Amino acid sequence: MNYRMILKSIGAVLCIEAACMLPSLGVSLLYKEIEVLAFILSILIISVIGLSLLRIATPNTSIYTRDGFALVALGWILVSVLGALPFVLSGSIPAVMDAVFESVSGFSTTGATILRDIEALPQGILFWRSFTHWMGGMGVLVLMIAILPSVQPNPLHILRAETPGPAPGKFVPKIRQTAEILYLIYLGLTAVEVVLFLLGGMSLFDALIHAFGAVGTGGFSSKNASLAAYNSVYIDIITTFFMLLSGVNFSLYYTAFKQDMKSALRDEELRFYLTVVAAATILLVLNLYGRVYPSLGAALRHAFFQVGSITTTTGYVTADYALWPAFSQVVLLLLMFIGGSAGSAAGGLKCIRIILLFKIIKREVTKIHHPRAVQTVKINGRVVDEETLWGVMAFFFFTILLSSAAILLLALDGNDMTTSTTAAIASINNIGPGLGLVGPTGNFAHLSVFSKAVLSLLMIVGRLEIYPLMLLFLPSFWRRSGT
Amino acid sequence: MNYRMILKSIGAVLCIEAACMLPSLGVSLLYKEIEVLAFILSILIISVIGLSLLRIATPNTSIYTRDGFALVALGWILVSVLGALPFVLSGSIPAVMDAVFESVSGFSTTGATILRDIEALPQGILFWRSFTHWMGGMGVLVLMIAILPSVQPNPLHILRAETPGPAPGKFVPKIRQTAEILYLIYLGLTAVEVVLFLLGGMSLFDALIHAFGAVGTGGFSSKNASLAAYNSVYIDIITTFFMLLSGVNFSLYYTAFKQDMKSALRDEELRFYLTVVAAATILLVLNLYGRVYPSLGAALRHAFFQVGSITTTTGYVTADYALWPAFSQVVLLLLMFIGGSAGSAAGGLKCIRIILLFKIIKREVTKIHHPRAVQTVKINGRVVDEETLWGVMAFFFFTILLSSAAILLLALDGNDMTTSTTAAIASINNIGPGLGLVGPTGNFAHLSVFSKAVLSLLMIVGRLEIYPLMLLFLPSFWRRSGT
Repeated sequence: MNYRMILKSIGAVLCIEAACMLPSLGVSLLYKEIEVLAFILSILIISVIGLSLLRIATPNTSIYTRDGFALVALGWILVSVLGALPFVLSGSIPAVMDAVFESVSGFSTTGATILRDIEALPQGILFWRSFTHWMGGMGVLVLMIAILPSVQPNPLHILRAETPGPAPGKFVPKIRQTAEILYLIYLGLTAVEVVLFLLGGMSLFDALIHAFGAVGTGGFSSKNASLAAYNSVYIDIITTFFMLLSGVNFSLYYTAFKQDMKSALRDEELRFYLTVVAAATILLVLNLYGRVYPSLGAALRHAFFQVGSITTTTGYVTADYALWPAFSQVVLLLLMFIGGSAGSAAGGLKCIRIILLFKIIKREVTKIHHPRAVQTVKINGRVVDEETLWGVMAFFFFTILLSSAAILLLALDGNDMTTSTTAAIASINNIGPGLGLVGPTGNFAHLSVFSKAVLSLLMIVGRLEIYPLMLLFLPSFWRRSGT
Repeated sequence: MNYRMILKSIGAVLCIEAACMLPSLGVSLLYKEIEVLAFILSILIISVIGLSLLRIATPNTSIYTRDGFALVALGWILVSVLGALPFVLSGSIPAVMDAVFESVSGFSTTGATILRDIEALPQGILFWRSFTHWMGGMGVLVLMIAILPSVQPNPLHILRAETPGPAPGKFVPKIRQTAEILYLIYLGLTAVEVVLFLLGGMSLFDALIHAFGAVGTGGFSSKNASLAAYNSVYIDIITTFFMLLSGVNFSLYYTAFKQDMKSALRDEELRFYLTVVAAATILLVLNLYGRVYPSLGAALRHAFFQVGSITTTTGYVTADYALWPAFSQVVLLLLMFIGGSAGSAAGGLKCIRIILLFKIIKREVTKIHHPRAVQTVKINGRVVDEETLWGVMAFFFFTILLSSAAILLLALDGNDMTTSTTAAIASINNIGPGLGLVGPTGNFAHLSVFSKAVLSLLMIVGRLEIYPLMLLFLPSFWRRSGT
C-alpha cells in the first residue's frame, strides 16, 4: 500500500471540500446569518488538515487498484464526517451522530433526513446540506481529479473505485479530461434546471437547492413537504425529467455530442432504463387511476414523478405512496433495487447489472436446452468477459447479504420489520425514504444512535458499491507486503 | 423430444399414484367412511389414464436432459392435479382450485392450507392429504425409478431434474439402487419417528400424519392448532429432530452407514447446516428469553422448534411467531431462503448454494486484492467447476425474479404487502405459513382463485427448482428438431 499517496490525495480532497464550503459561506453572508462563523471555522479546520496532508512527500507516486479503493473509502468517510462540521458548529444539528447522518446522507445522495422541521434551518446551512448532494453525485474524488490533477498522476483506479457500474472507465484517452467532461455535463444539467425552475416561479435559492437535489439524485429539499409544497405540474415535470437525465450514463451525453444522437440512443442500458421507467409508470397509472386519483392526468403526473424519483434513487416525493395500493408499492420497491445507469449520478444496482443478470439467466436456460453450445454474453454487440460477469453476480449477492445484516441489526435495535427492511434497502440504494416510520412523510429522527450509525455506513457502502469500504475491514488489506 | 418415452413414464408415475391411494382407501374403510367411494373412483380414473399411457410403444428409449426436465415437470403437474381428485369427489374440498392448491401444497411439501377447520375432515382424506407430503418429499419420480425401473432404462436425467441441489447424482453406480436406498432411508426415518410418537402417547393415526409431515418436511397436521395441540415438550423435541434429520443430504446417511460417521460429519454442507440451526436458535433464545418467554426452557424449546421447522421448510408451528419481536421474525425470514441441504426432503435455496455464494464473494474480494491470482472454489476439498457455479448464481437470481413477479401478481390481486411478499416467499421455498394474513395462525382460504393459482404454480416451481417448469413455457423447448 502506498500510504503516502493515499494520505496526500485525501489532503487534496479535503482542500476541495473546504473550497466547496465557500458558496455556503457566501449564502450565510448574504442572509446576514450568525452561521457565517460556523462556516469559517469549518473551512479553517478542514483546510488545515487538508494542507498538512497535501505536504506529505511522495517519492513513489504509483498506486494500484487496492490503493485506489482505500483512498476512495477513506476519502469518503473523512469528507462525510468533516462535512458535518457546519451542522454541529452552528448548532443547527447539535447531536454529532445526527449531523454525520445528515452529511453522509447528503454526500451519498441518499436524501434521508433526521430533521423534523427543515424550514427552521438557516439558509446557509440548508445550502450546504444540498450542496453535498451535488458534490457526491458525480464524486468528490472525480472532482479532485478534474481540479487538482497534479496531486494524483495515475487516477484511473480512483475513477474506477468511485464511479458506479461494473466496468467504468475513461471515454477519452486522458482521465483528467474524462473527469472534466463529466463535471461539465453535470454543471450544464444543473444550470439548465436552475433556469427552468426560475421560469417556473421558484426563488433562486430554492431553484439551486432543488437542482442540486435532482441532478445529484439526492432528494434534500428546502421545504418540509418536499416538492409537493409547490403543487405545480410544471415543476413536477421539470424535476422528473432532470432526475431521469441524471440517471443516464454521462458518457452517452458525450457520445451524443461528439458522434450523433442515434448511436447514443442505441445503447442497451439506456433502452432498458427508459423501458423500465415507461413500464413502471404505465403500471402505476393503471393501478392508481380511479382508485387513488380520479383524473388520468393526476395519476400520470404522480406516477411518473414517483417512478422517476425512485428509479434514479433521488427520493423526492409529491405523493404519500405509503397510502397507495400494495401493487404500486411493490412496483416502487422493485425500482429501488434496479436504480439508474452505470456512470450516472444515481444509485441502486444499476440497469446494466440487471441486464447482465437477465442475460446470464438466459444463457443458463439455453445450456439445459443445448448443453454443448458455448455462449457468450454481449452488451451493445461486444462480448462481456467472464470476470465482469462474476463481479456483477458477486455484487448482487453482496448487496443482499449486507442488506440482510443491516436489517437484522436494525430489527435488533427495536425497529419494526417494515421500517428495518425498507430503511436498509433505501439506504444501501441511496434512495432516502422507505416505508413504515421512515416512509415518504416520515423521517429518520426517531431512530437510535446505533441505527443511524448502521444506516450511515450502509449509505457510504451503497454509494461506493461495497468493495472499497469492505476492503478497509479486511486485516490482510493493511499488510505492507504484496502488491 | 422423445414424447413417447415421456408419456409412458408419466403413465408409470400415475399407476404408482393410484397404488399410493390404497392406504388412504384402507383408512377410509377402517373408519367406515363414505369417502371410500371417492377413493375407489379416484383410483379408477388415475389408473385408467396411467395404464393407457403405459401401453404406448417406445421404439426409442433414450432420453436426454430436456426430456428428463419435461417428464418431471409434466409428471408433477399431472400428479398434483389428479391428487386433488379425492378432495373434490368426496366433497371435502368442493372447490376445484382449493383442492388443487391443497394437493400441490401436499406434494411440494409446502404445507400451506386452505382449510379453516382441519379436524372436520374425514380420516381417510386427512391421511391422503398427509401422504402426499411423504410421496413428494423424496420425489414421485424417484419412487417410480425405485419401483418400476423397467419403464425407464436411463433415469439419470430424471433423478437430476427431481432431486434438489446444484449437482445431484447417484452415490452408488446404479441409479435404480440409488433410488431404492433413498427410499429405504426415508422409510426408516418415518418408521422410527412413528414409534417415538407412539411412545409419546400419540394415536397411531396422528403419529403417521405427523411423521409424514415432519420427515417429508411438509407441515400438514391433523389438528387445527398444528403440533401446539399436544403441548408436549417430548413431541416438540422429537418432531424438531426428525425435521432436521430430513433436512440433511440423504447420501450422507449412506456414507455414515457404508463408510463411517466421521467422513459424513466432515461434510461442509452438513456443518454449515448445523451451524445455521445452532446460530439461529441461539439468536432467537437471546431475543425471546425474558421478552416473550419468562423461562429459558420455554424460549429454547420454541426457538429450536421454529428454527428447525423453518430451516427445513416444514412449516409446523408451536408458537405464533407473528407476535415475536421483529428481530426474531427477520431471522426466521432469512432461514426461509437458506432452507435445508441438497439431496434432502427440504426446500429453500439449499445450504450448499449459500456456501457457494459465500465462496464466490470471497473469491471476488480476493481478486481486487490480488488481481492476478487464479482462484478455484472448492467444496469438501474438490474443485467445483465454473458451470456449476454459474448454475447456482442463475438459480439464485431466478428465484428472486420469480418471487418478485409473484409478489407483483399477488399485490395486483388486492393482497396487502406483507401477505403478498411472505406468501410468495413461503410458497417458492415450500415452507407453508408466511406472515400477515397467511401467518402461522392464519390460512390461505381467503385468497382469490387467481392468487391460489399463482401460489400453486410457485410451489411446484420451488419444489422442482425452477428449470423443469420454466422450460415447459419456452416455445423452442417443444420444437421437434435438435437434440
